[in-house]
Amino acid sequence: MAGLAQAPSRAVVLVGFMGAGKSTVAAELAEALGVAPLDSDRLLEQRLGHSIAEEFTLHGEAAFRAEEERLACELLAGAGPGAVIALGGGSVLSERVREALAPHLVVFLDIDAERAWERVRASSPDSPGAAERPLASDRQAFTALHAERGRLYEQVADAYYPPLDRGSAGGTLGALRALSMAPPGTRLLWASAASGDYPVLIGRGLLSAWGAGELGEAWPGQVPTSRRFCVSDENVAGLYSDRLARQAASVAIAPGEEHKTLASAETVWRALVSAGITRADQLVALGGGVVGDLAGFCAATYQRGMPVVQVPTSLVAQVDSAYGGKTGVDLPEAKNYVGAYHQPAAVIVDPDALATLPKAELAAGWAEVLKTALIAGGALWDRVARGDEVDERMILACARTKLGVVAADERDAGLRQVLNLGHTVGHAIETASGYSRYRHGEAVGLGLLATLRLSDNNGLRAQVRELLLERGLPVTMAGAPVEAIIEALERDKKRLGASVPFVLLSAPGSARIGCEVPLTGVRAAVAELQG
Amino acid sequence: MAGLAQAPSRAVVLVGFMGAGKSTVAAELAEALGVAPLDSDRLLEQRLGHSIAEEFTLHGEAAFRAEEERLACELLAGAGPGAVIALGGGSVLSERVREALAPHLVVFLDIDAERAWERVRASSPDSPGAAERPLASDRQAFTALHAERGRLYEQVADAYYPPLDRGSAGGTLGALRALSMAPPGTRLLWASAASGDYPVLIGRGLLSAWGAGELGEAWPGQVPTSRRFCVSDENVAGLYSDRLARQAASVAIAPGEEHKTLASAETVWRALVSAGITRADQLVALGGGVVGDLAGFCAATYQRGMPVVQVPTSLVAQVDSAYGGKTGVDLPEAKNYVGAYHQPAAVIVDPDALATLPKAELAAGWAEVLKTALIAGGALWDRVARGDEVDERMILACARTKLGVVAADERDAGLRQVLNLGHTVGHAIETASGYSRYRHGEAVGLGLLATLRLSDNNGLRAQVRELLLERGLPVTMAGAPVEAIIEALERDKKRLGASVPFVLLSAPGSARIGCEVPLTGVRAAVAELQG
Repeated sequence: MAGLAQAPSRAVVLVGFMGAGKSTVAAELAEALGVAPLDSDRLLEQRLGHSIAEEFTLHGEAAFRAEEERLACELLAGAGPGAVIALGGGSVLSERVREALAPHLVVFLDIDAERAWERVRASSPDSPGAAERPLASDRQAFTALHAERGRLYEQVADAYYPPLDRGSAGGTLGALRALSMAPPGTRLLWASAASGDYPVLIGRGLLSAWGAGELGEAWPGQVPTSRRFCVSDENVAGLYSDRLARQAASVAIAPGEEHKTLASAETVWRALVSAGITRADQLVALGGGVVGDLAGFCAATYQRGMPVVQVPTSLVAQVDSAYGGKTGVDLPEAKNYVGAYHQPAAVIVDPDALATLPKAELAAGWAEVLKTALIAGGALWDRVARGDEVDERMILACARTKLGVVAADERDAGLRQVLNLGHTVGHAIETASGYSRYRHGEAVGLGLLATLRLSDNNGLRAQVRELLLERGLPVTMAGAPVEAIIEALERDKKRLGASVPFVLLSAPGSARIGCEVPLTGVRAAVAELQG
Repeated sequence: MAGLAQAPSRAVVLVGFMGAGKSTVAAELAEALGVAPLDSDRLLEQRLGHSIAEEFTLHGEAAFRAEEERLACELLAGAGPGAVIALGGGSVLSERVREALAPHLVVFLDIDAERAWERVRASSPDSPGAAERPLASDRQAFTALHAERGRLYEQVADAYYPPLDRGSAGGTLGALRALSMAPPGTRLLWASAASGDYPVLIGRGLLSAWGAGELGEAWPGQVPTSRRFCVSDENVAGLYSDRLARQAASVAIAPGEEHKTLASAETVWRALVSAGITRADQLVALGGGVVGDLAGFCAATYQRGMPVVQVPTSLVAQVDSAYGGKTGVDLPEAKNYVGAYHQPAAVIVDPDALATLPKAELAAGWAEVLKTALIAGGALWDRVARGDEVDERMILACARTKLGVVAADERDAGLRQVLNLGHTVGHAIETASGYSRYRHGEAVGLGLLATLRLSDNNGLRAQVRELLLERGLPVTMAGAPVEAIIEALERDKKRLGASVPFVLLSAPGSARIGCEVPLTGVRAAVAELQG
């Protein structure tokens, strides 16, 4: 590596469950910064003069926690920019520790209970094995502890990392530095996909802060001489494009799904040529789902691929379409038929942008929040079910859900199909009604109702129906063209092959892909939407 | 793995230099076929009762070679379909062994001298180290031996493999089976790139054999239910499209570079939709460079990516553009500005197709042969320099040269720029003359002359000039628009960034990328083309 990385303006503190890789990530970050990492568990063992397991045996967990709290608070009080601290998995149980974390950049290394269990049971030269982990002897207790601690980690986290490949933590420092310069309350998600990793920043006021310059230049791999070219639509450009100070040029297409076409893509490509943009520059997709898909596709193909930063301004885009790298345009005959997988270089999410969104647009976008909450279950579903308003925390939770799915399956080979919950029927409704009668989100809402009927989950269907009504979203289709919808479904199914049928849902958080459903059932579920 | 692979209809025999991985590849192929591999070196040591190194010491190399020949001939005489034999590196020195190889499928594991040296000097548990290799003590002798043996391996080879990743040899069995079913004289190149590997078959009569069915179905990963959709141009379609028996549908675009446009791409995409093609099907690009680029791009983007089989029918395409995965279309302002990297699923090259090519087209294509020979040097350059006609061996040599470069650098980050030899000036000539005055190959020929002047290699320039004249290719541009060409060069250089300047050539086989050249020199070299 050529020289050391520039340090974030706050100390970096790693938290997370046992097995998440805190020591390894701390070592890699520290190495990139040219400092020594501070590992609270190891420091504590030095201070005690014996292992943590022995301390549990000799004096019990409570005595250990007191020592752990004292040491953690000392470390945190003394830490400044450039420091890297790995905190013992249980440290966050202490309210004093949680308070002491506030001035620092807290990175939550998120690992699911199953993978954590596998890791701690397989001891390695770098990390203590199960024998050294007093809390890793019983699988059920381990899983319960994982869930309980997870809530505390989320509470203190500024950044959320998935399990990283060995040697890749140093590459996240640019994003951490950007986070340390972002408006207060901004959160970082590190997104991981087979074709590459990228940072997602979510925070109010981020659009102006990022647009103004310094923050945008902190990304890893960002070439200082690269220029920004902004693609937007006419509505969004009027509202926000002046926030992107450093842009070389821009183009605004006509708003609406009917303009997600090859003709619009050609307008963008030719504007890129006119402005002399090269693949060393950066395309900024500023707008909703249509702009993100279109500009992402143009970036994927201009000079055989240039970086794109997604800056979603609609709710659909902020909770769903800006993540995961699916880009494309529509053909007259078929939606999204020309496109590419092209992961963004970064995603910049400013929830304040939602304030200018038309009410009907916001409601339609909320249908994707509902879909995501049904897939995720847990705390996100609880908030959605009790009617909470969309805020940055809810956007963050939706983004984490989607990114978790994409990390496991970037190219739609299996798990990613779970994201189609409600969309199979939803798309058919859109197609059968010529894409003009319903917004995408409205069709998805109707699709969710049909899917829950097919899932034989009438209680949840009634609850979802109420939630849709509360947002002013349609729950019936007067004069629904049932046969046309069934035909569109059949065509879609043929396209996808017989092996990609419905996503069903037995309960929030328990979606199942690849479910075969008899056509008569589908027809009944669609007919029921006629009200 | 689900079951065993179907065996090629001939025994597979691996030849290659020490360190090429013959034993490993043999073991992997044999495992996939459910047989035991036969390793001639190990069998010989068993027969001798001591190691080969000891045999050298005790009885000398001549005695060893006699034993080696006897054993190799025995093994080869007894081998039938399903057998996998790894032959000692020096076995091919024997003419009797070379003759005994004829009925078998001979796979040459090609490794460069440097990598081979590194491997044999680093002993590993699987392969004997330097101490066990009597011929690997002196670096210079090793390199000379590598060159000498290389000619023999090439002489006997039916298939050419680059160094394979561990565990990937089994994946080549489908291609070997296809090769065993192909017309006599067909050769297989295994192409390797960061984004994936694929087979290249080169042989006379291959188009009909592949088109007819069984051969085309032998590919690894080929789904029996997948359908073929053929993209061609109106000239080529008339000549050859009836050879592709199993095709579901086809579309032919108007011929010529001026039709490598988004409008043509849209024609193809919509024809794919009309025919109900899905990403589980296969697109066949049947034609020259324009069809390959255009159809490859359509395949890269249809439903976010479907497989494409390149079936090049022009000389430019057979020696150059069908390999390496660069696809795209032109914008009115700029050539190849919209595209993608998309490696083919296979390349099927039938040199007989060149018979129908117009003479001027063939000559222009030959300029790419000349360029490739200048990059490669060695035997290919010798043949081109003495005026040999293009045949399947020359096409094979060009393909090997290009694939070797792409394997090291798929996405143009460095080495791949070597392929631009003569193209920097060539493109500028095309642009400055509105793409109408010269064929691409003609402009490349002129570009090579300018490049050799810049390389200060006047002897080679004179030789290349004679070669171009012999093929009826232009060596001067009457009234060349020197300033317009310089302007186009400057624009191109700006696009590529200051760090991607000329490829120069000190001698055949010795191209250097990234050479800075003063503008006055470029102007003089271009002005000289005025004659």
